[in-house]
Formats: sequence, C-alpha cells, structure tokens
Amino acid sequence: MNAIDAAKAIAMLSQVSAAALTGFMYKKHGMRSRSVSNVRPLDGNTCRMVGRAYTIRYVPQREDLNVATDLGHPDSLLLRAMEEIGEGDVLVMDMQSCAHVGGLGDVLMTRLIQAKAAGVLADGGMRDVGDLKTMGLPIFCTGPAAPPGPVAIMPAGVQELVGCGGVAIFPGDFVVGDDDGAVIVPAHLAIEAAEHCIAKERQDSWSRQMVADGHGVRGYYPPDAERLAQYQAWVARQPPG
Amino acid sequence: MNAIDAAKAIAMLSQVSAAALTGFMYKKHGMRSRSVSNVRPLDGNTCRMVGRAYTIRYVPQREDLNVATDLGHPDSLLLRAMEEIGEGDVLVMDMQSCAHVGGLGDVLMTRLIQAKAAGVLADGGMRDVGDLKTMGLPIFCTGPAAPPGPVAIMPAGVQELVGCGGVAIFPGDFVVGDDDGAVIVPAHLAIEAAEHCIAKERQDSWSRQMVADGHGVRGYYPPDAERLAQYQAWVARQPPG
Amino acid sequence: MNAIDAAKAIAMLSQVSAAALTGFMYKKHGMRSRSVSNVRPLDGNTCRMVGRAYTIRYVPQREDLNVATDLGHPDSLLLRAMEEIGEGDVLVMDMQSCAHVGGLGDVLMTRLIQAKAAGVLADGGMRDVGDLKTMGLPIFCTGPAAPPGPVAIMPAGVQELVGCGGVAIFPGDFVVGDDDGAVIVPAHLAIEAAEHCIAKERQDSWSRQMVADGHGVRGYYPPDAERLAQYQAWVARQPPG
Amino acid sequence: MNAIDAAKAIAMLSQVSAAALTGFMYKKHGMRSRSVSNVRPLDGNTCRMVGRAYTIRYVPQREDLNVATDLGHPDSLLLRAMEEIGEGDVLVMDMQSCAHVGGLGDVLMTRLIQAKAAGVLADGGMRDVGDLKTMGLPIFCTGPAAPPGPVAIMPAGVQELVGCGGVAIFPGDFVVGDDDGAVIVPAHLAIEAAEHCIAKERQDSWSRQMVADGHGVRGYYPPDAERLAQYQAWVARQPPG
Amino acid sequence: MNAIDAAKAIAMLSQVSAAALTGFMYKKHGMRSRSVSNVRPLDGNTCRMVGRAYTIRYVPQREDLNVATDLGHPDSLLLRAMEEIGEGDVLVMDMQSCAHVGGLGDVLMTRLIQAKAAGVLADGGMRDVGDLKTMGLPIFCTGPAAPPGPVAIMPAGVQELVGCGGVAIFPGDFVVGDDDGAVIVPAHLAIEAAEHCIAKERQDSWSRQMVADGHGVRGYYPPDAERLAQYQAWVARQPPG
Amino acid sequence: MNAIDAAKAIAMLSQVSAAALTGFMYKKHGMRSRSVSNVRPLDGNTCRMVGRAYTIRYVPQREDLNVATDLGHPDSLLLRAMEEIGEGDVLVMDMQSCAHVGGLGDVLMTRLIQAKAAGVLADGGMRDVGDLKTMGLPIFCTGPAAPPGPVAIMPAGVQELVGCGGVAIFPGDFVVGDDDGAVIVPAHLAIEAAEHCIAKERQDSWSRQMVADGHGVRGYYPPDAERLAQYQAWVARQPPG
Repeated sequence: MNAIDAAKAIAMLSQVSAAALTGFMYKKHGMRSRSVSNVRPLDGNTCRMVGRAYTIRYVPQREDLNVATDLGHPDSLLLRAMEEIGEGDVLVMDMQSCAHVGGLGDVLMTRLIQAKAAGVLADGGMRDVGDLKTMGLPIFCTGPAAPPGPVAIMPAGVQELVGCGGVAIFPGDFVVGDDDGAVIVPAHLAIEAAEHCIAKERQDSWSRQMVADGHGVRGYYPPDAERLAQYQAWVARQPPG
Repeated sequence: MNAIDAAKAIAMLSQVSAAALTGFMYKKHGMRSRSVSNVRPLDGNTCRMVGRAYTIRYVPQREDLNVATDLGHPDSLLLRAMEEIGEGDVLVMDMQSCAHVGGLGDVLMTRLIQAKAAGVLADGGMRDVGDLKTMGLPIFCTGPAAPPGPVAIMPAGVQELVGCGGVAIFPGDFVVGDDDGAVIVPAHLAIEAAEHCIAKERQDSWSRQMVADGHGVRGYYPPDAERLAQYQAWVARQPPG
Repeated sequence: MNAIDAAKAIAMLSQVSAAALTGFMYKKHGMRSRSVSNVRPLDGNTCRMVGRAYTIRYVPQREDLNVATDLGHPDSLLLRAMEEIGEGDVLVMDMQSCAHVGGLGDVLMTRLIQAKAAGVLADGGMRDVGDLKTMGLPIFCTGPAAPPGPVAIMPAGVQELVGCGGVAIFPGDFVVGDDDGAVIVPAHLAIEAAEHCIAKERQDSWSRQMVADGHGVRGYYPPDAERLAQYQAWVARQPPG
Repeated sequence: MNAIDAAKAIAMLSQVSAAALTGFMYKKHGMRSRSVSNVRPLDGNTCRMVGRAYTIRYVPQREDLNVATDLGHPDSLLLRAMEEIGEGDVLVMDMQSCAHVGGLGDVLMTRLIQAKAAGVLADGGMRDVGDLKTMGLPIFCTGPAAPPGPVAIMPAGVQELVGCGGVAIFPGDFVVGDDDGAVIVPAHLAIEAAEHCIAKERQDSWSRQMVADGHGVRGYYPPDAERLAQYQAWVARQPPG
Repeated sequence: MNAIDAAKAIAMLSQVSAAALTGFMYKKHGMRSRSVSNVRPLDGNTCRMVGRAYTIRYVPQREDLNVATDLGHPDSLLLRAMEEIGEGDVLVMDMQSCAHVGGLGDVLMTRLIQAKAAGVLADGGMRDVGDLKTMGLPIFCTGPAAPPGPVAIMPAGVQELVGCGGVAIFPGDFVVGDDDGAVIVPAHLAIEAAEHCIAKERQDSWSRQMVADGHGVRGYYPPDAERLAQYQAWVARQPPG
Repeated sequence: MNAIDAAKAIAMLSQVSAAALTGFMYKKHGMRSRSVSNVRPLDGNTCRMVGRAYTIRYVPQREDLNVATDLGHPDSLLLRAMEEIGEGDVLVMDMQSCAHVGGLGDVLMTRLIQAKAAGVLADGGMRDVGDLKTMGLPIFCTGPAAPPGPVAIMPAGVQELVGCGGVAIFPGDFVVGDDDGAVIVPAHLAIEAAEHCIAKERQDSWSRQMVADGHGVRGYYPPDAERLAQYQAWVARQPPG
C-alpha cells in the first residue's frame, strides 16, 4: 500500500468504531479474532488511535544476556525500533502477555511523540503511567506495572509477524483503538472495511433514532426490506455530507 | 410478589448498599454467593441500580445457526427479550462469562431506556461503551469488548433460572448494584433484607462517628451491650425520619 | 531502624516513584519480585502512599470459628491490628488473593485515619468503596467487593512475615505506592534506594528533555560516557536544590 | 433422526477418531468449537465413547433450596435424568465448569450402567473415582473431586440446549470421545461426518505408511494430485471390506 | 487429643473415603471448603493417606535471604520440620500455590519415610518424581516440577495455622487422601466424622446393590422411610463385623 | 558448538536429571526460568529426552491465510521444519500456549521418527495421542487436543529465538526432559552443567543413603565440612566407574 492510500485509509478508519470493524471482519470475512485481548486504553481521554503497525517481538528473559535488554547497547532491538518508527505508526509490542512489567516509560514515550507515532499497543504493562497520562499519546496495554521490562522479557525481533493479545499482526496492518479496545485490520481490507463501516454506522444511527422514537427493535434493527427502503429514501434526502 | 410489594421493595432496597445486603444474606441466611463475580459498573456515575431480573441465557455459538444469533429473525430470543422487558426490570444476561464479546451496543441500549428498564447485568462485555457511558442507563458487566456477541455466543432461553457470575438468579429476583458491584436478593427476602439493612446501616453510621471521635473500635463496632443501649437511646432521641 | 531514620527514609522515599524503586532493586540487588501483583489504587486521586508495613495474615475461613472472624470478640486479631497500628504505618493484608470479599469497610477505614495510618495494601477486595473514595486514605487492593471478609477468610496472625500479591513482606518494610502500583523496599535498603532513585530520576528527566529536543535515544538514554559528562556538568551548574 | 439412522450413525462414528471429526467440522463446515475444553477421560482404559446427548443443566447453588439438590425429593431433576436416560445415551452435564465438586458418585454411575447409558460427559468433577475406574463406564470430566455437587451447584433443567466446556450441545447431538478428548457432532452431520472421516483416516494411514517408508511429507501428506491418483489406485486394488 | 484417641481416629478414618468425609462436614456442619484444591496423588498406587497435620508455611522468596532457603543453615525452618515431624504425621506445606517449583526431592522424602511420616500434602510441586513414585510414601501435590523451591519461595514458620489449597489447616488436623483428593477433618470432629461415614458408606453400598439389581434410584438412594427400614432390617441380619 | 562436542554434551546430559539442571542454572548462573511451564510428558514410559532445539514459532491464526496453515502448500513453514529437522534434534514448538489444539498428529510424528529426531517439546497440545503413545518418541506438551492446529494458530518462522512455556529458547539450545518436565540448557553451558550435575547427583545419592541409614538431614544434606570430607574419602575409595 502506498503512502497516499495509507493516508486515505487512516483518514477513513478514523471515522469508524472498533466495534463496527470487528462486526465487518466477522460477517464479511469470517474473522473471529481481530480484537486484542486484555488490553485497554491507559487513559480514557486519549483512547482514539488509528495507525499502522510497527512490530517488536519479545521473548522471556534469559538472565545472562545483557545485550538483549540494555538500551545502551548499540545493537539493542528496542533502540532500533525507537529509531525506525515513523509518523503515523503504532508501536505494537508482543510482550508475551507479561502484565507485571512495564514495557515503556516516560522517556521512550517522549521519543515516540517526537517521532509523531500514532500510539502504542502492547499485551503487557507500562511504567510511569502517572506521567504517561499527561503526555497525550494513545496507549493501549494491560495496565500499569512498576518493574522494568528486563525483569521478565527481552526483544527478539522487529518488524516481524507477531501475535499480540491473541491476534496475528503483520507490520503495516492497521490498528484502530477506541473505548471498546483495539482491533487489527489487515492492510488489504482497510479501505473496504472503512467504507462498509461508515455506511453501517450511518444506518445504525438511523435505527437507533427509530428505536428511541418508540418504534421498537423488530423490523428496524436490523431494518427489514420495507424499512431499508425507508432508510435509503431518507439517506437520499440528506444534503451531501 | 405483587406489583405494590415489588415497588415497595425497590423503594426500600434503593436506600441500602450492596455490601450491607451481602452481609445480611450471609449472616442471617447462610448465603455466601450472592455477589456477582467479575462484574463492575461501566460508568462510575451511573452505578446505582435496583430492579427485578428479566433473564436471558446464552450458550456457546454454533457457527451454522443464524436463527439463533440474527436479531432480524422473527424468532430471535434476544428480540423477544427486548420486547418483553418491562419498566423496572434489569436485563440479566448469562453470557457464559464471555468477556471478549459485547452483548449489547448503543441501539439495543436505547430500546432498554425506551422500555424504562432499570439497568443491565451481564457476565460478559458490552460494545460502543463510549456511547453507552453518555446514555445514563446503569450497566454492570465485565467491561468493554468490540466484537459482536455472535462471534462467541447465542441465546438459548429467556426468563429461565440462570447462573450469572457465579450466582443463581431466578426471574423476579431483585438486583441491587452500586460501587461495590451487583448482588442478587431472592424475591421472598427482599423486604426483610431491606428493613434489616436500613437499620444496620444506621447503626454502622453511629459506630463510624464514635470511631471518628476517637473512641476506638473495641466495644463500639460492633457495639457491645452497653454501647448498644447507648445507641438505641440515641436513636430514640432522633426526630422521626 | 530507629524512628528518626524511618522518618528520614519516608521523607526521601516520598520523592521517588515505584517504577524507579523496582529498577533499583532489580539492577543493584537482583530482586525481581518486589512489586505487588494484581493490586491497584482504589482511587486515582489518593494513590501516593509511603509508610511502613504493619502486617495481618489471613487464611481460608473455617465456618465454625466465630472467634476468628467476629470483630466483637475481645481476642479478635483484626481488632488487635486496629488498636496497634500506628502513625505512618501501612496496614498490609495478606488476604490469600481473595478478590471477591472486602477486607475493610468505611468504619474500620475511619479508625485507620484516626490512627494516622499511611494507607492500606491488600491482595484482596474492599467494601463500601463509594464511601472509601471520599475519605482520602490511600488504598491499594484488588478492587471493590461487596461481601464481608468472613465469607471466605479469617485472620491467623499479626506482625508476621507474610506474602502479599507475590511479595515477601516483613513488618517494618517500606511500602511505596503510586499510579504504577505498590512496591516493597526492605528496611535495610530504604535509604540507599531513595538516594539512588532521586539521582536516577533527575538524570532520566535530563534524558527525557534531550529526547524531547530531538536528540534521539541513542547515547542519551541511558547517557553514554560523553553525555554523562555533559549531564554531570549540567548538574553542577544547577543552583542547590 | 429415527432409531435406525441413529444406530447406523453410532456404528459408523465408532470407527473414527475425535481428531478426525474436529478436522471435518472445521474444514467442511467452519466449526471451530466442537471439542469440549478441560475434559479428559477419567480412565485411559475406558475412554472410547460414542452416544447421543441427554443433557442436564446446573446453575450455582442457592443455599436455601433443598428441593433442587436433594435426590430424595420426588421432583429432583437429577433423579428425573436418572430415570429418563436410555440405552446409548451419554449423560451431558453442564456443571458450570465446577471442577471442585463431584457431579456423580458410584451409586448413580451404577444406575447409568444399569440403564445401558453410553457414558458421561461433564465440565466438572466426579466422586468415588477409585470405584468409578473399576466400573467400565466411559467418563469424560475435569477429574476427581471429593465434595458433593450441592456444595456448589444445583440442577436447573434437563434436555435443554446447554453449553459444556465451551461447546453448544443440543439433546440428541452425537458425543464421541477417545484419548484426544470429547467432541460433539450435530445430529444432522453425523452420517456425513462419519463417512468423510472413515475415508480420511484410510488416506492418512496410507500417507503415514509412505512417510514411514522414507518418502518424506512433501507431496504425500496431504497427497498432491499425482500421489492422490496413486493412493486411489491402491485403494482400488484393496479387497472390499 | 491424646495419642490413644488419635490412633483410634486414624484407624477409623482409614476405613472411609474423602468423598464421604466432605459430605459429612458439609451436611452436618455446613463446611463447604474442606477439600484441598488443585492437589492430586503423585502416584495412583500410593494415594491412600491418613495422618495428622504438621504444617510448614512458605512465603514468596526474597532473593537476598540465604538463611531462609539454605537447608545447610542451622536455623533452617525446613530442617526443623524434618527433625520434628513424627510417626503418623502428614507434612502439610503451604507453598503459596507455587506449582512451578518442587518443594521436596528424593533425599528429604527419604527422611520422611525414615521418620515414619504418613505422607505429604502440598499446594505446590515436587521434584525427582521418577524416584518419588518408587518410594511408597503417599504424596498429594500439584504435580512434578523440576526447579528447586528457593527459586520462588522460602519458609516462614512451622506448626502454624496455614492455608493450603484453599483450606484452613491447624496443626493436628486430620488429613485424609484417596483417589478423589485430600480433605481436612478438624481434630474435634474426627471420631464423629469417621463413625458417621462408616455407617453412611455401608448404607450407600446397600443402595448401590439395590440400584444394580434394577430397583432404580427413586426411594432407594437415598432410601425413603420404607427402604430405610428394609435396610436396617438387613443390617440387623448381618453377622457382627 | 561442533558435532563432536554436541554429541559429548548429549551423552553427558543423558546421565543427569532435569531437577539437577535447574538447580545448577539457578545456583551457579542465577537463572530462574529454565523450566518449561505447563508441559508434561505425554507418556510416562517415553519421557526421557535429550536433544538440541530446532524451533518453529506460531502466531494466532488469521482465517484467510491458507498458505500459512496448509501443509500442502510448497512454502509451508511446518513442511520446511519437517524436512530440515535432523538426527538428535528436538522439535520445539512455540504454540502460543494453545492447549486446545493439537500441533502434530501421527503422520508428522512418523516423519520425526524417520528423521531420527530426539523428541518434541510444545507449549500446546497434540492429536492422535492414542497412537502417539505407541510410537516411542518422547513428547512433552500440554496434553491431548483433538482439533487441528489451524483452528487457532499458524506458523510464522523457523529456527528463530522463541519463547516456549515461559522460557527463551535459541536454536541449538539443549533440551532435557524427564518425569519432572523439560528444561532448557543454553548451548555454552551444556558441558559445565552436565559435569556439575553428574557430581552433584552422586553426592546427593550418598546423602540419601546416609539419611536412609538414620543419620538425619542435619550435616548430611547438604554435607557440612566434616561430612564433605567423609564423602570425598568415600568417593576416593570407589572403583573407577
């Protein structure tokens, strides 16, 4: 996907919800596991996130391998991730579900903001969360954790296909997060998914209004043939938006 | 229980806490499992809930059974629940502890509000929680989850005896929720429970004031015979309330 | 440790974060398990806590032993804890990881405030949390739980070496809590830990500023020899603080 | 399904493995959750089981309801199950995943044998397993558990659609168990499944022989077009039967 | 309890099953949690165990405390347990549910045999289980685990009230284990429990025979008034045993 | 490590236990996480395994990617592993802890035997275990599971650094399994580990004999200075072995 298409996909995905996207991927493509488990926004005020995955994969720590865990080592993989990650990327951390250590703290989060990253998704914890909540970067993780990552894990690779919270994530997949959590959209489905969901959410808004008006659910959500026609007529009457 | 008694029970139960009710059911009736596990209010601002259980029971999904999961099917059990639920009812969803799917979203929640339901209790997740938090209906569940329910579960029955978060719930049982979580009061105990807890909480407030005044816990919480007399004399002096 | 040293340690530890302390204990003393698992501040506004551990140990309940669980019994261990706990102490409750019962409610919390305790750390739940959040005492626990403690546990001893959330805690150990959770500092390491962390956090602030200024992570976090000299020169230029 | 077809299905399913059946249901019908979780044969010597589901559903216990749990009560649902279950049935117990209680002991297992039941499938424990292992009835459950069922659960219904170990099970579904565990075949798929798996296992045996002979996996498992022809020619050469 | 009574209790308890004992304690004394969770016999051939609890309590390891974990240190608590444990005792190890380390290996198990201990009950793992299975001592634990205990835990006390697998255990309580697991009988109930269970198991054997003879469950298990009389008449006819 | 050294290491490691190896790595190298969690031998009769790791890494399945999961595809990574694995290798499968699917069945296990592989280590399940138990290849896994792997996971890479059951495993690491489970020895420590453990196990046998002879544990296990000399004198008297 070229940069123009990616920017377009991000712009469109920014208009739809994580819930709608999982519905689309399940109903249209039979994908049941596109929502990242055990992950929530660290701060309710910065939980809207859209970007493309830059992945880093961890494995359990081996206590004698300082190279792997020392950010000061010139070959550090985490250092490499910090230098390679680009504007609009979401740093996806396969932390092996380690909720009891913090993968990043305030200094590295400062670097991500400086690099114009779109956010962080990790199936593990984060440190310095008091500071992190003030910094404005969307962070989806298992929650706060004081101990540093090397207590339990070490990086094993960057920009590989990874598993994170029970979801397969390829570098370049789209990551969309909101109050409902984070979902992963395969790159080749991003435009189709966004188009479908924009239309679906508009229709759902209409259904919701009908229900609020006392029409009941039956025939209105989902709309049966008669109400679908009614909805489409209503859409046709709207000013172009 | 007739409607007048139920209304009275709801009015009385609205004055007492979930904590006091579990204490009553444990100490007076030996009931140890009346508090719903792994469930919390979705929004701290709308977590006070009292109502009677209208139950729906789910089982794991079978991928080929569209009838069961399609709300558009005329025999949908979830649709039936949406149509039958009445004023003051709490929709109790036995979701088989599926925290990774969302049982209801904004449209169906709109229907519940329209039906004057008292709230929702589910041992599973909810979708569109960003919207849900703005709608004002008390919702006790395992938390947000983007994927739709049919990814994992399908309805199997309504208004049956169900298990929800480790608690047996009969249709018509009273559901009381607050910051401490949701508890279930068997219908035949509701008035007794409320009366007991109103008295107990008044006494506890007195004990708390005594402790705050520096009297210490011993003899004051719980009050021994001497302080109980002192408390009762104090109660007798209060203006009728 | 005498009272003067303890007061000094508390004053110094109050300046550093739980994250920095776990880093110190891991890197300098090889301690990997000093952060209490599954515990979070009950209220984000009162999550800064520093004090010394006063411990109480629970075991699973035996249904026929009223003595152990009745606070009104003169030999109650919980009552003893309430009377012995002193100014600056943190009540550490080894609740056997029972998240489904509440160890303390509003009356006993009032007593702790009256005794000038520094806070509560428990690997179990708390009751009356709506009230507790208004009382101002820092509480680190697994979360809200309506049922009273005796439903599941009973006290077995006070001021013993206990395990709490996977951490060994001796009476007198220092407990430090913030948004990242609660960590335990052995008494003999408290001053060393605080001194190290005060210096480390100052250096990290400098690294963070360098990163924010666009210098990148490499060489600045952690600083290599050249930047360390640069940092130390900068420190030397600061007014005494 | 009439009795003759059911007997035929049982006879055919008795020739195939649980593994082959899950493969068939996944690849041909997109069913991913037909294998019962956390369940294993109580005794390796009696783990081959084929039969049709007779279901009983439990909910968490309510301590004051003796009717529900007392087998001596004339309306006991478990008693009803014991009287209704017929030859070739598998008693499927939705025990709400309670591994810490035993659903049945030696007396009721004696009744099942007397009724010519085909076996037991339960997502909970069993009691008296020392005896049970000598009785010869196939039992798939979570393992041994000394406490009686009423400590935690009570029956809520028989012959309903239930969930057991994460699988939806209708009365009349086929249950097939072997060393790999227990799987559920929807009644309408039983003949098709058995036919497919008999053929598939024959082909796999041929592949296995080719691999054992040193041909390697590539092209032989699964067979490519050339080897499929080779296999089919081999099949054609075999004597009927 | 004096030694004669204890020997009598052990002799009687040796005739009854763990299942019957949990039934007795639940029905006659309302005790729901007397069966040790997550524990099974290491070897099916040596799973019959009856003895009195000698307890040792562990807490999580603190990496700098060699005294606590070094068996070679003269003050080692585990060493003390090895020296104090007596004939007929069951070593009860509260290992804080650490299934990933082995509490004892072949050398210490040799010591227990030499001391004529009745067995081991631990809510953690054991090492050298290949050897252990050949040694004949009943061991109830979570299963095999290669790493030594000090990797995760250290002793904190002996002969204290402990929690083990969710059960409160006092020194001197009776421990009874069989294929169904291990249960704890409070010392003051041991004789009553054994008497009750011996009678109950005799009656259940009669019920089982009746069921095997085709009488069905109703009226026979449990026996109604008529069959109870029939059973008692049968008992009266038996030769004294 | 060259082939001669590797063969020597395997020969030596074959004389020592998993328990002794974890003790060595913990005490001499501070390594606490070298034992693979949640993994046990599929068959007690074939649980002795020593070999070098050939790794394959899985991630969660993406439902639309047949290439990744179809063994018939020429680029299949699992097919590649089957072709590359060599004599004396242990196939190490990072199955993302998926115990509910079977990674390998009887056909691929036949291939491993044909390739003279030393065994299989997987943090997931295996299929066709009835057959597998008759085939003689040591298999350490989470247990039986009927569903095929693609229901949940797909291969992402071979011969990479992986995490398996909480342990970092490099290709070429030594895997040693016995009744206590499977442990991982870094290649550079293999000879040192084996030498240490051979000596340690000899000394422990002496201690065990002393304890069996009634000397007690104190001073004998571990031996103090006096008994160490006694032991060494005994060693010196033994015929060369």
